[in-house]
Amino acid sequence: MTRYRATVAYDGTGYHGFQRQAAEHEPTIQGEVERALAKLGQPGITVTGSGRTDAGVHATGQVIAFNADWRHGVDDLQRALNATLPADIAVLDVHEAAPDFHPRYDAVSREYVYTIYNAPVRHPLERRYALHVAEPLDVTSMNAAAAVLVGEHDLAAFGNPTVGQVTVRRILRAHVWAEPPFIRVELEGNSFLYRMVRSIVGTLLAVGRGRMTLDEFRAVLESRDRSRAGPVAPAHGLCLTRVRY
Amino acid sequence: MTRYRATVAYDGTGYHGFQRQAAEHEPTIQGEVERALAKLGQPGITVTGSGRTDAGVHATGQVIAFNADWRHGVDDLQRALNATLPADIAVLDVHEAAPDFHPRYDAVSREYVYTIYNAPVRHPLERRYALHVAEPLDVTSMNAAAAVLVGEHDLAAFGNPTVGQVTVRRILRAHVWAEPPFIRVELEGNSFLYRMVRSIVGTLLAVGRGRMTLDEFRAVLESRDRSRAGPVAPAHGLCLTRVRY
Repeated sequence: MTRYRATVAYDGTGYHGFQRQAAEHEPTIQGEVERALAKLGQPGITVTGSGRTDAGVHATGQVIAFNADWRHGVDDLQRALNATLPADIAVLDVHEAAPDFHPRYDAVSREYVYTIYNAPVRHPLERRYALHVAEPLDVTSMNAAAAVLVGEHDLAAFGNPTVGQVTVRRILRAHVWAEPPFIRVELEGNSFLYRMVRSIVGTLLAVGRGRMTLDEFRAVLESRDRSRAGPVAPAHGLCLTRVRY
Repeated sequence: MTRYRATVAYDGTGYHGFQRQAAEHEPTIQGEVERALAKLGQPGITVTGSGRTDAGVHATGQVIAFNADWRHGVDDLQRALNATLPADIAVLDVHEAAPDFHPRYDAVSREYVYTIYNAPVRHPLERRYALHVAEPLDVTSMNAAAAVLVGEHDLAAFGNPTVGQVTVRRILRAHVWAEPPFIRVELEGNSFLYRMVRSIVGTLLAVGRGRMTLDEFRAVLESRDRSRAGPVAPAHGLCLTRVRY
Protein backbone atom coordinates (compact mmCIF):
# COMPACT_ATOMS: atom_id res chain seq x y z
CA MET A 1 0.00 0.00 0.00
CA THR A 2 1.22 3.48 -0.91
CA ARG A 3 -0.33 6.74 0.26
CA TYR A 4 -1.25 9.12 -2.52
CA ARG A 5 -2.06 12.78 -2.47
CA ALA A 6 -3.99 14.36 -5.34
CA THR A 7 -5.42 17.75 -6.31
CA VAL A 8 -8.98 17.56 -7.55
CA ALA A 9 -11.18 20.04 -9.43
CA TYR A 10 -14.93 19.69 -9.70
CA ASP A 11 -18.13 21.35 -10.76
CA GLY A 12 -20.18 20.93 -7.60
CA THR A 13 -23.53 21.63 -9.31
CA GLY A 14 -24.60 18.01 -9.49
CA TYR A 15 -23.21 16.87 -6.14
CA HIS A 16 -24.31 16.78 -2.52
CA GLY A 17 -20.93 18.14 -1.50
CA PHE A 18 -17.55 16.51 -1.15
CA GLN A 19 -18.28 14.05 1.61
CA ARG A 20 -19.94 10.68 1.12
CA GLN A 21 -23.44 10.69 2.59
CA ALA A 22 -25.25 8.17 4.73
CA ALA A 23 -27.68 7.88 1.82
CA GLU A 24 -25.33 6.16 -0.64
CA HIS A 25 -27.35 7.14 -3.70
CA GLU A 26 -26.66 10.85 -3.17
CA PRO A 27 -23.78 11.65 -5.53
CA THR A 28 -20.71 13.10 -3.79
CA ILE A 29 -17.17 13.86 -4.92
CA GLN A 30 -15.69 11.43 -2.41
CA GLY A 31 -18.10 8.73 -3.56
CA GLU A 32 -17.22 9.28 -7.24
CA VAL A 33 -13.46 9.12 -6.61
CA GLU A 34 -13.85 5.96 -4.52
CA ARG A 35 -15.99 4.45 -7.27
CA ALA A 36 -13.38 5.32 -9.90
CA LEU A 37 -10.67 3.68 -7.77
CA ALA A 38 -12.84 0.58 -7.41
CA LYS A 39 -13.24 0.43 -11.20
CA LEU A 40 -9.45 0.60 -11.45
CA GLY A 41 -9.12 -2.51 -9.31
CA GLN A 42 -8.80 -0.66 -5.99
CA PRO A 43 -12.04 -1.50 -4.18
CA GLY A 44 -12.94 -0.49 -0.63
CA ILE A 45 -10.64 2.53 -0.48
CA THR A 46 -11.62 5.48 1.68
CA VAL A 47 -10.73 8.85 0.18
CA THR A 48 -10.10 11.70 2.63
CA GLY A 49 -10.38 15.38 1.66
CA SER A 50 -8.92 18.59 3.08
CA GLY A 51 -12.42 19.46 4.18
CA ARG A 52 -16.02 19.17 3.15
CA THR A 53 -17.39 21.42 0.51
CA ASP A 54 -21.14 21.90 0.68
CA ALA A 55 -23.63 20.83 -1.94
CA GLY A 56 -23.17 22.94 -5.07
CA VAL A 57 -19.76 24.36 -4.09
CA HIS A 58 -16.98 23.97 -6.67
CA ALA A 59 -13.27 23.30 -6.33
CA THR A 60 -10.18 23.85 -8.41
CA GLY A 61 -7.77 22.92 -5.62
CA GLN A 62 -9.34 20.34 -3.31
CA VAL A 63 -6.67 18.01 -1.92
CA ILE A 64 -7.41 14.37 -1.25
CA ALA A 65 -5.44 11.40 0.01
CA PHE A 66 -5.91 7.64 -0.10
CA ASN A 67 -3.96 4.41 0.24
CA ALA A 68 -3.82 2.19 -2.82
CA ASP A 69 -1.99 -0.78 -4.15
CA TRP A 70 -1.18 0.65 -7.58
CA ARG A 71 1.61 -1.00 -9.54
CA HIS A 72 2.17 1.75 -12.09
CA GLY A 73 3.38 5.35 -11.80
CA VAL A 74 1.50 8.35 -10.45
CA ASP A 75 1.05 9.71 -13.99
CA ASP A 76 -0.66 6.49 -14.98
CA LEU A 77 -2.87 6.66 -11.90
CA GLN A 78 -3.85 10.24 -12.77
CA ARG A 79 -4.64 9.31 -16.37
CA ALA A 80 -6.63 6.25 -15.33
CA LEU A 81 -8.65 8.27 -12.80
CA ASN A 82 -9.39 11.02 -15.33
CA ALA A 83 -10.46 8.41 -17.88
CA THR A 84 -12.82 6.88 -15.32
CA LEU A 85 -14.24 9.88 -13.45
CA PRO A 86 -17.25 11.79 -14.80
CA ALA A 87 -16.57 14.95 -16.84
CA ASP A 88 -17.39 17.25 -13.91
CA ILE A 89 -14.53 15.89 -11.76
CA ALA A 90 -10.84 15.95 -12.76
CA VAL A 91 -7.63 14.96 -11.02
CA LEU A 92 -5.06 17.74 -11.63
CA ASP A 93 -2.06 15.94 -10.15
CA VAL A 94 -1.13 12.82 -8.16
CA HIS A 95 1.92 12.44 -5.90
CA GLU A 96 3.17 9.82 -3.51
CA ALA A 97 2.75 11.09 0.05
CA ALA A 98 4.14 10.24 3.47
CA PRO A 99 2.26 7.31 5.04
CA ASP A 100 0.82 9.62 7.71
CA PHE A 101 -0.13 12.51 5.39
CA HIS A 102 -3.61 13.76 6.27
CA PRO A 103 -5.15 16.33 3.89
CA ARG A 104 -7.32 17.81 6.61
CA TYR A 105 -5.16 17.81 9.73
CA ASP A 106 -1.94 18.70 7.92
CA ALA A 107 -3.45 21.64 6.05
CA VAL A 108 -1.99 25.01 7.04
CA SER A 109 -4.60 27.06 5.21
CA ARG A 110 -7.51 26.94 2.77
CA GLU A 111 -8.23 29.53 0.10
CA TYR A 112 -11.71 30.17 -1.27
CA VAL A 113 -12.84 32.51 -4.02
CA TYR A 114 -16.44 33.66 -4.29
CA THR A 115 -17.44 35.07 -7.68
CA ILE A 116 -20.18 37.64 -8.17
CA TYR A 117 -21.46 38.54 -11.65
CA ASN A 118 -22.34 42.19 -11.11
CA ALA A 119 -24.32 43.45 -14.09
CA PRO A 120 -27.90 44.60 -14.67
CA VAL A 121 -28.86 41.47 -16.64
CA ARG A 122 -27.99 37.90 -15.66
CA HIS A 123 -25.59 35.99 -17.95
CA PRO A 124 -26.59 32.47 -19.02
CA LEU A 125 -22.97 31.36 -19.53
CA GLU A 126 -21.86 32.56 -16.07
CA ARG A 127 -24.84 31.41 -14.05
CA ARG A 128 -23.35 28.14 -12.84
CA TYR A 129 -20.20 29.58 -11.29
CA ALA A 130 -21.08 33.12 -10.25
CA LEU A 131 -23.82 34.75 -8.19
CA HIS A 132 -25.71 37.32 -10.23
CA VAL A 133 -26.20 40.65 -8.43
CA ALA A 134 -28.01 43.24 -10.55
CA GLU A 135 -27.50 46.39 -8.49
CA PRO A 136 -24.06 48.05 -8.45
CA LEU A 137 -21.90 47.06 -5.48
CA ASP A 138 -19.43 49.29 -3.65
CA VAL A 139 -16.31 47.16 -3.99
CA THR A 140 -14.13 49.59 -2.01
CA SER A 141 -16.40 49.31 1.03
CA MET A 142 -16.61 45.54 0.67
CA ASN A 143 -12.82 45.31 0.58
CA ALA A 144 -12.50 47.56 3.64
CA ALA A 145 -14.95 45.34 5.53
CA ALA A 146 -13.14 42.18 4.44
CA ALA A 147 -9.89 43.63 5.80
CA VAL A 148 -11.49 43.75 9.27
CA LEU A 149 -11.49 39.95 9.25
CA VAL A 150 -7.74 39.54 8.86
CA GLY A 151 -6.07 38.18 11.98
CA GLU A 152 -7.26 35.91 14.75
CA HIS A 153 -10.90 36.40 15.66
CA ASP A 154 -13.82 34.61 17.20
CA LEU A 155 -15.90 34.11 14.06
CA ALA A 156 -19.04 32.72 15.69
CA ALA A 157 -21.09 35.45 13.96
CA PHE A 158 -20.28 33.86 10.60
CA GLY A 159 -20.56 30.22 11.62
CA ASN A 160 -23.15 27.84 12.91
CA PRO A 161 -21.00 26.45 15.71
CA THR A 162 -22.06 23.32 17.51
CA VAL A 163 -22.22 23.59 21.29
CA GLY A 164 -18.74 23.92 22.77
CA GLN A 165 -17.03 24.27 19.38
CA VAL A 166 -14.04 26.58 19.32
CA THR A 167 -14.91 29.39 16.92
CA VAL A 168 -11.61 31.23 16.87
CA ARG A 169 -10.00 31.16 13.43
CA ARG A 170 -7.08 32.93 11.83
CA ILE A 171 -7.84 34.74 8.57
CA LEU A 172 -4.61 35.23 6.62
CA ARG A 173 -5.97 37.17 3.64
CA ALA A 174 -9.30 38.77 2.79
CA HIS A 175 -9.65 40.73 -0.42
CA VAL A 176 -12.51 41.96 -2.56
CA TRP A 177 -11.74 43.29 -6.03
CA ALA A 178 -13.49 44.10 -9.29
CA GLU A 179 -12.71 42.40 -12.59
CA PRO A 180 -15.71 43.86 -14.41
CA PRO A 181 -18.28 42.47 -14.80
CA PHE A 182 -17.08 40.20 -11.99
CA ILE A 183 -16.37 40.89 -8.35
CA ARG A 184 -14.20 38.37 -6.51
CA VAL A 185 -14.02 37.77 -2.79
CA GLU A 186 -10.91 35.84 -1.77
CA LEU A 187 -10.45 34.47 1.72
CA GLU A 188 -7.57 32.47 3.07
CA GLY A 189 -7.75 31.11 6.58
CA ASN A 190 -6.28 28.35 8.70
CA SER A 191 -9.71 26.73 8.68
CA PHE A 192 -13.32 27.75 8.31
CA LEU A 193 -16.51 27.10 10.25
CA TYR A 194 -19.55 25.54 8.60
CA ARG A 195 -20.79 27.89 5.84
CA MET A 196 -18.47 30.61 7.13
CA VAL A 197 -17.25 31.83 3.74
CA ARG A 198 -20.79 32.10 2.41
CA SER A 199 -21.97 33.90 5.59
CA ILE A 200 -19.11 36.38 5.24
CA VAL A 201 -19.95 36.93 1.56
CA GLY A 202 -23.63 37.41 2.39
CA THR A 203 -22.65 40.07 4.93
CA LEU A 204 -20.15 41.72 2.58
CA LEU A 205 -22.99 41.96 0.03
CA ALA A 206 -25.00 43.97 2.59
CA VAL A 207 -21.99 46.31 2.85
CA GLY A 208 -21.64 46.48 -0.95
CA ARG A 209 -25.32 47.39 -1.29
CA GLY A 210 -24.94 50.18 1.26
CA ARG A 211 -27.21 48.49 3.79
CA MET A 212 -24.44 47.98 6.35
CA THR A 213 -21.62 50.35 7.28
CA LEU A 214 -18.05 49.35 8.00
CA ASP A 215 -18.68 49.98 11.72
CA GLU A 216 -21.77 47.81 11.62
CA PHE A 217 -19.79 45.06 9.91
CA ARG A 218 -17.17 45.28 12.65
CA ALA A 219 -19.94 45.15 15.27
CA VAL A 220 -21.39 42.00 13.66
CA LEU A 221 -17.98 40.30 13.91
CA GLU A 222 -17.55 41.39 17.53
CA SER A 223 -21.09 40.35 18.50
CA ARG A 224 -20.37 36.66 17.80
CA ASP A 225 -24.11 36.55 17.06
CA ARG A 226 -25.06 34.63 13.92
CA SER A 227 -28.42 36.37 13.71
CA ARG A 228 -26.72 39.73 13.06
CA ALA A 229 -24.79 38.57 10.00
CA GLY A 230 -26.18 38.63 6.47
CA PRO A 231 -27.83 35.65 4.81
CA VAL A 232 -25.68 32.76 3.61
CA ALA A 233 -24.70 33.48 -0.02
CA PRO A 234 -25.69 30.76 -2.52
CA ALA A 235 -23.31 27.83 -2.97
CA HIS A 236 -22.78 28.13 -6.72
CA GLY A 237 -20.55 31.23 -6.50
CA LEU A 238 -18.07 29.53 -4.19
CA CYS A 239 -14.92 27.67 -5.17
CA LEU A 240 -12.23 26.04 -3.02
CA THR A 241 -9.16 27.19 -4.93
CA ARG A 242 -6.18 26.06 -2.86
CA VAL A 243 -5.07 24.18 0.24
CA ARG A 244 -1.62 24.87 1.61
CA TYR A 245 0.52 22.41 3.63
CA MET B 1 -48.40 45.98 -33.21
CA THR B 2 -44.81 47.14 -32.81
CA ARG B 3 -41.75 45.38 -34.15
CA TYR B 4 -39.06 44.69 -31.56
CA ARG B 5 -35.45 43.75 -31.92
CA ALA B 6 -33.60 42.10 -29.05
CA THR B 7 -30.16 40.68 -28.31
CA VAL B 8 -30.27 37.28 -26.68
CA ALA B 9 -27.64 35.23 -24.84
CA TYR B 10 -28.04 31.53 -24.11
CA ASP B 11 -26.34 28.43 -22.89
CA GLY B 12 -27.16 26.05 -25.73
CA THR B 13 -26.34 22.90 -23.74
CA GLY B 14 -29.94 21.96 -23.04
CA TYR B 15 -31.42 23.02 -26.39
CA HIS B 16 -31.95 21.55 -29.82
CA GLY B 17 -30.64 24.74 -31.36
CA PHE B 18 -32.22 28.12 -31.91
CA GLN B 19 -35.00 27.17 -34.28
CA ARG B 20 -38.31 25.67 -33.24
CA GLN B 21 -38.55 22.02 -34.28
CA ALA B 22 -41.32 20.07 -35.89
CA ALA B 23 -41.34 18.01 -32.71
CA GLU B 24 -42.71 20.68 -30.39
CA HIS B 25 -41.44 18.97 -27.23
CA GLU B 26 -37.80 19.48 -28.24
CA PRO B 27 -36.68 22.57 -26.33
CA THR B 28 -35.38 25.38 -28.55
CA ILE B 29 -34.43 29.00 -27.93
CA GLN B 30 -37.10 30.26 -30.31
CA GLY B 31 -39.70 28.09 -28.61
CA GLU B 32 -38.73 29.34 -25.14
CA VAL B 33 -38.87 33.01 -26.14
CA GLU B 34 -42.25 32.48 -27.82
CA ARG B 35 -43.48 30.71 -24.71
CA ALA B 36 -42.26 33.56 -22.49
CA LEU B 37 -44.08 36.07 -24.71
CA ALA B 38 -47.25 33.98 -24.47
CA LYS B 39 -46.97 34.00 -20.67
CA LEU B 40 -46.69 37.79 -20.86
CA GLY B 41 -50.02 37.96 -22.67
CA GLN B 42 -48.56 37.88 -26.19
CA PRO B 43 -49.65 34.49 -27.54
CA GLY B 44 -49.06 33.17 -31.04
CA ILE B 45 -46.05 35.34 -31.79
CA THR B 46 -43.37 34.04 -34.14
CA VAL B 47 -39.83 34.98 -33.14
CA THR B 48 -37.27 35.24 -35.94
CA GLY B 49 -33.53 34.95 -35.37
CA SER B 50 -30.46 36.15 -37.28
CA GLY B 51 -29.78 32.53 -38.07
CA ARG B 52 -30.04 29.08 -36.62
CA THR B 53 -27.54 27.94 -34.10
CA ASP B 54 -27.15 24.17 -33.91
CA ALA B 55 -27.97 22.02 -30.92
CA GLY B 56 -25.51 22.75 -28.12
CA VAL B 57 -24.14 25.98 -29.63
CA HIS B 58 -24.17 29.03 -27.34
CA ALA B 59 -24.81 32.70 -28.02
CA THR B 60 -23.96 35.97 -26.37
CA GLY B 61 -25.13 38.09 -29.30
CA GLN B 62 -27.99 36.37 -31.12
CA VAL B 63 -30.42 38.94 -32.54
CA ILE B 64 -34.12 38.24 -32.72
CA ALA B 65 -37.18 40.16 -33.85
CA PHE B 66 -40.91 39.83 -33.27
CA ASN B 67 -44.11 41.85 -33.47
CA ALA B 68 -45.96 42.40 -30.22
CA ASP B 69 -48.74 44.44 -28.77
CA TRP B 70 -46.90 45.57 -25.65
CA ARG B 71 -48.26 48.60 -23.83
CA HIS B 72 -45.22 49.35 -21.68
CA GLY B 73 -41.67 50.41 -22.50
CA VAL B 74 -38.87 48.31 -23.95
CA ASP B 75 -37.12 48.20 -20.56
CA ASP B 76 -40.25 46.70 -19.02
CA LEU B 77 -40.47 44.18 -21.84
CA GLN B 78 -36.84 43.18 -21.27
CA ARG B 79 -37.36 42.81 -17.51
CA ALA B 80 -40.55 40.83 -17.99
CA LEU B 81 -38.89 38.48 -20.48
CA ASN B 82 -35.90 37.92 -18.19
CA ALA B 83 -38.21 37.24 -15.27
CA THR B 84 -40.07 34.66 -17.37
CA LEU B 85 -37.34 32.96 -19.39
CA PRO B 86 -35.37 30.04 -17.93
CA ALA B 87 -31.98 30.85 -16.34
CA ASP B 88 -30.05 29.63 -19.40
CA ILE B 89 -31.58 32.28 -21.70
CA ALA B 90 -31.33 36.06 -21.14
CA VAL B 91 -32.43 39.09 -23.10
CA LEU B 92 -29.56 41.61 -23.09
CA ASP B 93 -31.45 44.49 -24.70
CA VAL B 94 -34.74 45.29 -26.43
CA HIS B 95 -35.31 48.08 -28.95
CA GLU B 96 -38.17 49.15 -31.16
CA ALA B 97 -37.32 48.33 -34.77
CA ALA B 98 -38.50 49.35 -38.21
CA PRO B 99 -41.64 47.41 -39.24
CA ASP B 100 -39.68 45.61 -41.96
CA PHE B 101 -36.58 44.81 -39.89
CA HIS B 102 -35.50 41.24 -40.49
CA PRO B 103 -32.71 39.89 -38.27
CA ARG B 104 -31.59 37.39 -40.87
CA TYR B 105 -31.90 39.18 -44.20
CA ASP B 106 -30.74 42.55 -42.87
CA ALA B 107 -27.64 41.16 -41.17
CA VAL B 108 -24.38 42.37 -42.69
CA SER B 109 -22.19 39.93 -40.81
CA ARG B 110 -22.09 37.31 -38.07
CA GLU B 111 -19.23 36.81 -35.63
CA TYR B 112 -18.52 33.49 -33.95
CA VAL B 113 -15.90 32.58 -31.36
CA TYR B 114 -14.81 29.00 -30.82
CA THR B 115 -13.04 28.33 -27.51
CA ILE B 116 -10.49 25.57 -27.00
CA TYR B 117 -9.24 24.66 -23.52
CA ASN B 118 -5.69 23.60 -24.35
CA ALA B 119 -4.14 21.91 -21.32
CA PRO B 120 -3.00 18.38 -20.48
CA VAL B 121 -5.91 17.73 -18.07
CA ARG B 122 -9.55 18.61 -18.76
CA HIS B 123 -11.15 21.30 -16.56
CA PRO B 124 -14.55 20.56 -14.99
CA LEU B 125 -15.52 24.24 -14.78
CA GLU B 126 -14.69 24.92 -18.44
CA ARG B 127 -16.12 21.77 -19.98
CA ARG B 128 -19.48 23.23 -21.00
CA TYR B 129 -18.15 26.16 -23.04
CA ALA B 130 -14.76 25.05 -24.34
CA LEU B 131 -13.43 22.05 -26.25
CA HIS B 132 -10.68 20.32 -24.31
CA VAL B 133 -7.60 19.52 -26.40
CA ALA B 134 -4.82 17.87 -24.39
CA GLU B 135 -1.92 18.05 -26.85
CA PRO B 136 -0.19 21.40 -27.44
CA LEU B 137 -1.47 23.27 -30.51
CA ASP B 138 0.58 25.44 -32.84
CA VAL B 139 -1.43 28.65 -32.62
CA THR B 140 0.79 30.52 -35.08
CA SER B 141 0.14 27.93 -37.79
CA MET B 142 -3.57 27.89 -37.00
CA ASN B 143 -3.72 31.67 -37.32
CA ALA B 144 -1.82 31.58 -40.62
CA ALA B 145 -4.29 29.01 -41.95
CA ALA B 146 -7.27 31.03 -40.74
CA ALA B 147 -5.92 34.06 -42.63
CA VAL B 148 -6.22 32.08 -45.87
CA LEU B 149 -9.99 32.20 -45.43
CA VAL B 150 -10.28 35.99 -45.44
CA GLY B 151 -11.94 37.35 -48.56
CA GLU B 152 -14.55 35.95 -50.89
CA HIS B 153 -14.24 32.20 -51.44
CA ASP B 154 -16.26 29.20 -52.44
CA LEU B 155 -16.43 27.50 -49.03
CA ALA B 156 -18.05 24.25 -50.14
CA ALA B 157 -15.20 22.31 -48.51
CA PHE B 158 -16.39 23.53 -45.10
CA GLY B 159 -20.11 23.27 -45.69
CA ASN B 160 -22.67 20.64 -46.41
CA PRO B 161 -24.33 22.49 -49.27
CA THR B 162 -27.65 21.34 -50.57
CA VAL B 163 -27.82 20.76 -54.32
CA GLY B 164 -27.62 24.04 -56.22
CA GLN B 165 -26.85 26.10 -53.09
CA VAL B 166 -24.47 29.00 -53.62
CA THR B 167 -21.44 28.32 -51.46
CA VAL B 168 -19.53 31.54 -51.97
CA ARG B 169 -19.17 33.53 -48.76
CA ARG B 170 -17.16 36.54 -47.71
CA ILE B 171 -15.02 36.10 -44.60
CA LEU B 172 -14.23 39.48 -43.10
CA ARG B 173 -11.99 38.39 -40.22
CA ALA B 174 -10.39 35.13 -39.19
CA HIS B 175 -8.07 35.07 -36.18
CA VAL B 176 -6.67 32.43 -33.88
CA TRP B 177 -4.94 33.54 -30.70
CA ALA B 178 -3.82 32.14 -27.37
CA GLU B 179 -5.12 33.33 -24.00
CA PRO B 180 -3.51 30.50 -22.04
CA PRO B 181 -4.91 28.03 -21.20
CA PHE B 182 -7.46 28.98 -23.86
CA ILE B 183 -7.17 29.27 -27.62
CA ARG B 184 -9.83 31.30 -29.40
CA VAL B 185 -10.85 31.09 -33.02
CA GLU B 186 -12.81 34.13 -34.18
CA LEU B 187 -14.55 34.26 -37.52
CA GLU B 188 -16.64 37.04 -38.95
CA GLY B 189 -18.39 36.51 -42.26
CA ASN B 190 -21.34 37.82 -44.20
CA SER B 191 -23.03 34.47 -43.62
CA PHE B 192 -22.05 30.89 -42.96
CA LEU B 193 -22.97 27.55 -44.45
CA TYR B 194 -24.39 24.77 -42.29
CA ARG B 195 -21.77 23.76 -39.70
CA MET B 196 -19.18 25.83 -41.53
CA VAL B 197 -17.55 27.38 -38.45
CA ARG B 198 -17.21 24.00 -36.77
CA SER B 199 -15.82 22.43 -39.97
CA ILE B 200 -13.25 25.21 -40.21
CA VAL B 201 -12.30 24.77 -36.55
CA GLY B 202 -11.98 21.01 -37.01
CA THR B 203 -9.61 21.60 -39.93
CA LEU B 204 -7.65 24.30 -38.07
CA LEU B 205 -7.18 21.76 -35.27
CA ALA B 206 -5.53 19.41 -37.78
CA VAL B 207 -3.16 22.28 -38.63
CA GLY B 208 -2.54 23.03 -34.94
CA ARG B 209 -1.69 19.39 -34.30
CA GLY B 210 0.81 19.41 -37.16
CA ARG B 211 -1.19 16.94 -39.21
CA MET B 212 -1.95 19.42 -42.00
CA THR B 213 0.36 22.04 -43.50
CA LEU B 214 -0.65 25.53 -44.50
CA ASP B 215 -0.43 24.48 -48.16
CA GLU B 216 -2.65 21.49 -47.48
CA PHE B 217 -5.16 23.73 -45.71
CA ARG B 218 -5.19 26.02 -48.74
CA ALA B 219 -5.68 23.00 -50.99
CA VAL B 220 -8.65 21.84 -48.89
CA LEU B 221 -10.31 25.24 -49.34
CA GLU B 222 -9.61 25.24 -53.08
CA SER B 223 -10.82 21.65 -53.51
CA ARG B 224 -14.40 22.57 -52.51
CA ASP B 225 -14.50 18.94 -51.35
CA ARG B 226 -16.07 18.42 -47.92
CA SER B 227 -14.39 15.04 -47.53
CA ARG B 228 -10.95 16.69 -47.46
CA ALA B 229 -11.73 18.99 -44.51
CA GLY B 230 -11.29 17.99 -40.89
CA PRO B 231 -14.10 16.62 -38.73
CA VAL B 232 -16.80 18.99 -37.49
CA ALA B 233 -15.64 20.33 -34.09
CA PRO B 234 -18.08 19.72 -31.21
CA ALA B 235 -20.90 22.22 -30.71
CA HIS B 236 -20.16 23.14 -27.09
CA GLY B 237 -17.05 25.23 -27.91
CA LEU B 238 -18.96 27.49 -30.28
CA CYS B 239 -20.63 30.80 -29.47
CA LEU B 240 -22.43 33.28 -31.71
CA THR B 241 -21.01 36.50 -30.30
CA ARG B 242 -22.30 39.29 -32.56
CA VAL B 243 -24.49 40.09 -35.53
CA ARG B 244 -23.89 43.36 -37.37
CA TYR B 245 -26.52 45.35 -39.32
